[in-house]
Amino acid sequence: MNTDNDIWIREVGTRDGLQSIQTQFSTANKLEWIRLEAAAGIPEIEVGSFVPPKLLPQMADTAEVVDGAVMVNDLTVSVLVPNLRGAQAGMASGAHLINFPLSVSEAHSEANLRKPVSAAIEDFANVMNYRREHPEHAHVRIGVGLATAFGCTISGQVALADVLRAAEKVTALAPDEIAVADTVGYGNPAQCRTIFREILAMAGDIPVAAHFHDTRGLGLANVDAALEVGVRRFDSSLGGLGGCPYAPGASGNVVTDDLVFMLEAMGLTTGVDLNKLLVARQFMEQHLSDEPTFGAIANAGLPKGFAPAMQRA
Amino acid sequence: MNTDNDIWIREVGTRDGLQSIQTQFSTANKLEWIRLEAAAGIPEIEVGSFVPPKLLPQMADTAEVVDGAVMVNDLTVSVLVPNLRGAQAGMASGAHLINFPLSVSEAHSEANLRKPVSAAIEDFANVMNYRREHPEHAHVRIGVGLATAFGCTISGQVALADVLRAAEKVTALAPDEIAVADTVGYGNPAQCRTIFREILAMAGDIPVAAHFHDTRGLGLANVDAALEVGVRRFDSSLGGLGGCPYAPGASGNVVTDDLVFMLEAMGLTTGVDLNKLLVARQFMEQHLSDEPTFGAIANAGLPKGFAPAMQRA
Repeated sequence: MNTDNDIWIREVGTRDGLQSIQTQFSTANKLEWIRLEAAAGIPEIEVGSFVPPKLLPQMADTAEVVDGAVMVNDLTVSVLVPNLRGAQAGMASGAHLINFPLSVSEAHSEANLRKPVSAAIEDFANVMNYRREHPEHAHVRIGVGLATAFGCTISGQVALADVLRAAEKVTALAPDEIAVADTVGYGNPAQCRTIFREILAMAGDIPVAAHFHDTRGLGLANVDAALEVGVRRFDSSLGGLGGCPYAPGASGNVVTDDLVFMLEAMGLTTGVDLNKLLVARQFMEQHLSDEPTFGAIANAGLPKGFAPAMQRA
Repeated sequence: MNTDNDIWIREVGTRDGLQSIQTQFSTANKLEWIRLEAAAGIPEIEVGSFVPPKLLPQMADTAEVVDGAVMVNDLTVSVLVPNLRGAQAGMASGAHLINFPLSVSEAHSEANLRKPVSAAIEDFANVMNYRREHPEHAHVRIGVGLATAFGCTISGQVALADVLRAAEKVTALAPDEIAVADTVGYGNPAQCRTIFREILAMAGDIPVAAHFHDTRGLGLANVDAALEVGVRRFDSSLGGLGGCPYAPGASGNVVTDDLVFMLEAMGLTTGVDLNKLLVARQFMEQHLSDEPTFGAIANAGLPKGFAPAMQRA
């Protein structure tokens, strides 16, 4: 049981959120958003991804966004990289951390990458090898993401054994972080307790992060379940940006603002100033066109007399 | 630790939902809503309240609604009663269960009822006495609700000691159910575990229910936390009807449809058919004017291959 009260939040709205919506953010506006969230105390932001610009034009300026983001004090700048070429670009970019996702669902892996899970894990091994062979990149941390770990829109259920086999293989490669993702919002709290208990035990000293989508309303319930078995790192998206295009009205990632509220209300420490975070949310919303945002705290306000965990300590 | 897998859901949208919105439902439409939810397998519905019609005109037809609802097979019909006069009407109405709420926050009790918590508990004792003195009402069950147990819009925090003192006093009166309510949506999962652990231990064989509002997005996370320490009864509102009038966009009670999804996904048994429940939701929504509804499952749909807990057993 992890009794550490410090929680690490990674904002992914600037990557997972923006890649899912129509509105294009300018580089300057991405950077202002990043600065405002860092000023609110968010410790890490996934600022973009090194993917072919033809596939995701919203991410075409990721190198420039990294250039600006690494100038922000006390901010860990991470990027998503889908393959070795992206990983090379990510390591060269100056980002502190690169995240390499792979799907643990065979059906999803075949459909999206045209390769089995085992081949995607080999690709990840090649990324780890590349860093080893290039000492100039030794300071860049490499995380791996286990996508579709809670279910998959193609196969439906994903067997726990498949999740754990993939987790075991990537753990053996000694990444700097393992993120376990409910990519399509299928997960439930009971499943979270089972999966994270196993993976935390397997990961040992390697930090384990949880990446939840709120598509079916269970995002924060899943966070609570993961917290309870010891997870202390969570991905989330300001205003829940990035709703599923196939489910109008469905939220994207767990809402950063509500996540911070829940954690601080529970007496856990995020280091985030909620009022400043809502300023960042307002900035983001001003630059959206028709994209919906989500979250309860922005509407309902904080409870009377609410004090963040640190002020109560 | 309660390892029972059966969950009892009480729909409160027909009371807590309707009393909070502008749209007036006709008696016939209330009854159709009740019939549709009962047909979906919801075991209990709080169909109205016996309050002065001047205060809540939406509830003026509660006696007729009870008349119709008790004709529905296998449905427990409950009503809310705010005082002895309401309790007398409730017992005479034919309802199976009457729920008597009292506020455990002194500030809230004084502001709303012009009396201290101790006097409200005496009022509840008088309701219990009235039933004892009227054997013709011996079959009517009497529940008590501990309102504002997680915080109060006037005083902010409510001390755990105050909650437990009130819980102890009402437990001594041997009610047929104790509901603990986060009336204003201030609660968090850590607080739920603490409060429900204590109250379940205190209540012994008396069933304990949880009544959560999703005002700040933590409704289902709070349900999961309460489940985990042994709560097996939950209040909820179809489509989250009854958002807070002071917080536009803020949901009312926990959304029944999402609650059923979460519980069934976790392998717990509600007896509710989600597809039929969404038919009831559609009926309700057709009769709303401008009132917002909430919930993720109605938008996003069920996960591919999703099967209710009973079909997996």
